[in-house]
Amino acid sequence: MRDPLAIDDDPAPLADVIAGGLTRVTERFDRQLASDLPAVATLVAHIERYRGKMLRPTLVLACGLAAHPEAASARGPEEFGALLHDGHIAVAAVCEMVHMATLVHDDVLDEADTRRRGWTVNHLSGNEAAVMLGDYLIASAFHLCSTLPTTEAAEEVGRASVTMCAGELLQLSHRQDLALGERTYFDIVARKTGDLIRASCRLGARQSGASDAVADRLGRFGLNLGIAFQIQDDLLDLTGRESVLGKPVGKDLEKGKLTLPVIHHLAHADAGTRARTLARLRAAGESESSRGLPDVLESLRATGSIEASVRRAAALVEDARAQLADLPDSPPRRRLHAMADAVIRRNV
Amino acid sequence: MRDPLAIDDDPAPLADVIAGGLTRVTERFDRQLASDLPAVATLVAHIERYRGKMLRPTLVLACGLAAHPEAASARGPEEFGALLHDGHIAVAAVCEMVHMATLVHDDVLDEADTRRRGWTVNHLSGNEAAVMLGDYLIASAFHLCSTLPTTEAAEEVGRASVTMCAGELLQLSHRQDLALGERTYFDIVARKTGDLIRASCRLGARQSGASDAVADRLGRFGLNLGIAFQIQDDLLDLTGRESVLGKPVGKDLEKGKLTLPVIHHLAHADAGTRARTLARLRAAGESESSRGLPDVLESLRATGSIEASVRRAAALVEDARAQLADLPDSPPRRRLHAMADAVIRRNV
Repeated sequence: MRDPLAIDDDPAPLADVIAGGLTRVTERFDRQLASDLPAVATLVAHIERYRGKMLRPTLVLACGLAAHPEAASARGPEEFGALLHDGHIAVAAVCEMVHMATLVHDDVLDEADTRRRGWTVNHLSGNEAAVMLGDYLIASAFHLCSTLPTTEAAEEVGRASVTMCAGELLQLSHRQDLALGERTYFDIVARKTGDLIRASCRLGARQSGASDAVADRLGRFGLNLGIAFQIQDDLLDLTGRESVLGKPVGKDLEKGKLTLPVIHHLAHADAGTRARTLARLRAAGESESSRGLPDVLESLRATGSIEASVRRAAALVEDARAQLADLPDSPPRRRLHAMADAVIRRNV
Repeated sequence: MRDPLAIDDDPAPLADVIAGGLTRVTERFDRQLASDLPAVATLVAHIERYRGKMLRPTLVLACGLAAHPEAASARGPEEFGALLHDGHIAVAAVCEMVHMATLVHDDVLDEADTRRRGWTVNHLSGNEAAVMLGDYLIASAFHLCSTLPTTEAAEEVGRASVTMCAGELLQLSHRQDLALGERTYFDIVARKTGDLIRASCRLGARQSGASDAVADRLGRFGLNLGIAFQIQDDLLDLTGRESVLGKPVGKDLEKGKLTLPVIHHLAHADAGTRARTLARLRAAGESESSRGLPDVLESLRATGSIEASVRRAAALVEDARAQLADLPDSPPRRRLHAMADAVIRRNV
């Protein structure tokens, strides 16, 4: 499968550096999760299939390069490669591990059977093993984080993880809430998805010795990018193709999760249309089925709600890009710029 | 309810110091979990009911006092109280938070409805909220840990948490395994219960500036104590009274978990008795019922398996106490000595 976040005009030397860095991240990831217990090793081997876009590790590395004092003067893959040290790799592995833990637990919450074209852990080994495997991933992430020389990364990852769980609990408390407003939606998404991506970017920069001010800017880049990423995920759950995504569509409707296009639609439709959509959403939630998806989608298109959400994500990407303005021009900065766009152009 | 770990001959000044320390731990615990989100705050408020023996925080404080260079010369509650600083309190809150997270997730795994005379989170708010609340607790524990000046506590708690999850996964892989041997049983218990108690004792000592050698000894004290504690838990699930325990008995049989008395029995019964017990265990596991408990209990008594397990726990307590031999005599050392015994004498 072609990398959905691949960038066509990526300068070849940098692409190699990031790819090389990601290989080191994967090795660090696997080494940290290795276990002498076959019961653990089997489950860990299974979740290697979950590895997808590696968005968070890629951002750790790219922000680490872009915020590095030598980013503008480095030439060629070797000079760029030398800017990434073990701290970047460890932080990148930690962020991916925390993310994987949420995937494993999300699948339990969503009773999902498939992810990335494979069976989920809960489907194969039961909810109990999936809950514990998620815990094993979180604990391993924090353990790895605490082997760094200072507590900075552990504190940031700890804070982001707390925020993420709070976001999940907030979302859970609004399941089947057909009155969910935009403000709460964005609060949920910023916490649930945005904050760990913010932390990934921030920590990548800090590992390169960037000042707090520069790291905060990259953090804001990540937060906006993360929210845009989630909107794109929401859009793909409505408009994506199952054969391309590798997982079923319409799950949000089925689970009673209102996403941005639906919220926009309910706020802009006339009373009659609104009542019809609400009835369809209730039916989807009650029967836990996404059969009504084509009808809902048609209604969303009629109020321009798909396009409005696409524009909203694009505006967030613009805001993210604006955070890069003060960084010196460099191949990694250009890479971040292009990645921001790829996040909302992907179809998987 | 009388504190099941209370010690009759506890010198009054020290009891006050520990009680005062635990109050600070509880405040730190609550402050760390506080959330501006009502959805989170409600769930957090509920698990305050889970607070039970506070074994781990008590051990952090008692080991912190016993390993303190001034333990032998301190007199009166004020002098002892001055030996406990914010680091002890934070570490104690962290250990309790990790433990609470496992309780919340264990209840999901066990489909338990009641704990400590109240409903479980999964029963009240669903498995989804319980999974996320457990994650929130783990993340909060690591976040608090990372606010300490060095990474030592975070690393130790991280390692212990990984070990604990691996132990849970090992146990899970042996559910309904009627051939489970003593060796694997002890491996499970040491990982699942012993290691966090080991870490609690070790870190309590380190917060008092104790050497690694002294901290390791107290760690070994904790590990043995933790294993003995789990054996007592296993015994109470067989011989305890529901009205005293505040939760159902016979859950281990029902869930197909072989515990020490059953393993001893199967290893020592004659072929006919063994076959009868196996049939009963299979029936209990398949019907997920503990109706066969009285029969199983009678068989266990016939092979002296209850008594053998009691002796085994007592031997572990003796080994734990032996680790205290090199510490100077002091009220906190005497408290640890007495606590070791209380762990296996409790009926709740």
